[in-house]
Amino acid sequence: MRTTSKEFTEFFPQLIEDIVSELPSFGATPEMVSRIRQMIEYNVMGGKMNRGLSVVDTVKIMRGEAELPKDINEKALVLGWSVEWLQAFFLVADDIMDESPSRRGQPAWYRRKDVGILAINDSFILEACIYRLLKKYFRSEPYYIELVELFHETSYQTELGQMVDLLTAPENDINLDRFSIQKHGYIVEYKTAYYSFYLPVALALLMTGTPADSPIFQVAKDILIPLGTYFQIQDDYLDCYGEPEFIGKVGTDIEDNKCSWLVVQALDRVTPEQRQILDENYGRKSPAEHAQRVKQLYRDLDIEGVYKSYEDKAIAELQDKISKVDESLVPREVFTAFLNKVAKRTK
Amino acid sequence: MRTTSKEFTEFFPQLIEDIVSELPSFGATPEMVSRIRQMIEYNVMGGKMNRGLSVVDTVKIMRGEAELPKDINEKALVLGWSVEWLQAFFLVADDIMDESPSRRGQPAWYRRKDVGILAINDSFILEACIYRLLKKYFRSEPYYIELVELFHETSYQTELGQMVDLLTAPENDINLDRFSIQKHGYIVEYKTAYYSFYLPVALALLMTGTPADSPIFQVAKDILIPLGTYFQIQDDYLDCYGEPEFIGKVGTDIEDNKCSWLVVQALDRVTPEQRQILDENYGRKSPAEHAQRVKQLYRDLDIEGVYKSYEDKAIAELQDKISKVDESLVPREVFTAFLNKVAKRTK
Repeated sequence: MRTTSKEFTEFFPQLIEDIVSELPSFGATPEMVSRIRQMIEYNVMGGKMNRGLSVVDTVKIMRGEAELPKDINEKALVLGWSVEWLQAFFLVADDIMDESPSRRGQPAWYRRKDVGILAINDSFILEACIYRLLKKYFRSEPYYIELVELFHETSYQTELGQMVDLLTAPENDINLDRFSIQKHGYIVEYKTAYYSFYLPVALALLMTGTPADSPIFQVAKDILIPLGTYFQIQDDYLDCYGEPEFIGKVGTDIEDNKCSWLVVQALDRVTPEQRQILDENYGRKSPAEHAQRVKQLYRDLDIEGVYKSYEDKAIAELQDKISKVDESLVPREVFTAFLNKVAKRTK
Repeated sequence: MRTTSKEFTEFFPQLIEDIVSELPSFGATPEMVSRIRQMIEYNVMGGKMNRGLSVVDTVKIMRGEAELPKDINEKALVLGWSVEWLQAFFLVADDIMDESPSRRGQPAWYRRKDVGILAINDSFILEACIYRLLKKYFRSEPYYIELVELFHETSYQTELGQMVDLLTAPENDINLDRFSIQKHGYIVEYKTAYYSFYLPVALALLMTGTPADSPIFQVAKDILIPLGTYFQIQDDYLDCYGEPEFIGKVGTDIEDNKCSWLVVQALDRVTPEQRQILDENYGRKSPAEHAQRVKQLYRDLDIEGVYKSYEDKAIAELQDKISKVDESLVPREVFTAFLNKVAKRTK
């Protein structure tokens, strides 16, 4: 049975206690302990937890068990939350760099009056917590160093993706010459797909005894990176075409000068006249006519149709790849579980 | 023979190549590679390199060799530079948080027009490089995981120290009630002493075969943390009483509202009237009369004399501790080498 977000959430207090209870051994005063507890709760909780849940679900599929033995379940929950913790580390810092006002329906952490630029250091502390938890729960496992290296490598990949994203679409310097299908692909793969799709599965594989040099990891990467790419392209699509009541926000990628899949596809198809329209209207916060003009151009170029074709092709290719997975290595369900969650979602 | 900064510096290009040459396997374009190279050179180089050099020197003392075998020397240089890299990670971020205009005689990295807030992500990449280098040079060593854990733990300690520092002396909110001798001690120990004094020696101990559970680590900590504390208190002292031509800068701790050792000692001794003078003059950038008034108060309280007594006592205690080190465990020279570099320095 799929892990419920209730079960997953209920485990979180134990991990906070793990972090907080050892802080006095780092000389922390009660004030420090209380601030760190609050900082962790504010930033690690409150997401959809899909990444974390998928670690536990993948462990269940790998072991072919609907319910995991208590000790295995605990380890899977720790790894799941470690992915959520990694995401919190990135999001706290991303929000500062993107000047985002809010996150998950509350003010972005750095926006709080009692936090501000201290949020940079808080993001470091969130990252450090991951390795405290890994040490506590996995120190004596033969795959401990592989877990640590996997978090290191995934962090590096995500940071490289974030670098390209920030260089491609700086806040106050609009220049569509920097956008391209290729750069969009890099950003999506490195900034999102590795940590959101490959990492949870790779952790579950290590935890269920897959040797670090097994070909399964490459098989998983070859499916999960395109799947993660499809997921992010969907995200770009839904930002413009999704129903606000479903996606939980009004999309502002056009106004925010985002290197979205929609704009790089448009740039690939524009006439010189249309390109001028894009140059003059993309990335303007106001008035609303600018964004409307870009959306009209997307209609003129049938970008929605371009997306639908991409989506159908992406799903078909993924299904084909999954059908070729050698099930003596890894159950196909590891990947179909992901694909079914992502394909044709509306939120 | 002591490692020269020339020898140490000459090894640096090899490490840049290690990082840069694997970037294409992370999908990096030539533009990305060139930016990362520049970012590393700008931020990792240009310091006094005392922390890095002390790793190599400690390895020499531990092995009782004036010259190290080539492979050992290389490993010691890698660890030395890893400490410098860790410092670069912290300094890039600290400069943003402190709004520092410059670092090592050049604009702080985030101040460059082509960098800005991207510097946050660059600091993450600097941190990630440490673990790339450790993996490349130490993956097959039995103490590899201990090196990784030591960098994790030291980072955490430094981040906790930075948190207290930022909470104690926020830029635009002067309140001397938050300052205390105890808090100053915490900041100095956690923000500086662990990574600057304990880390280099602990790395050298691991590299020369000291088992991770050896009592030597505690012996080293008991000496090096007080030594690092003395070093930082000296720094606070020199900021006010050092000769600008020696220390290479005009101190501005008073103007910058720093939780300096001098002000916490003054706060410990003031009459209510003197406290009012401090409250009205500390942490004001201008006019210069404010800082002059604080310095006059320091003279009235003979803070310089308080420092001299502290220094004599600190040196005597350290000498006493070092004299009691069991040389069958670790040569006393490991510690005297440090103490001699620090004691009574004028820059």
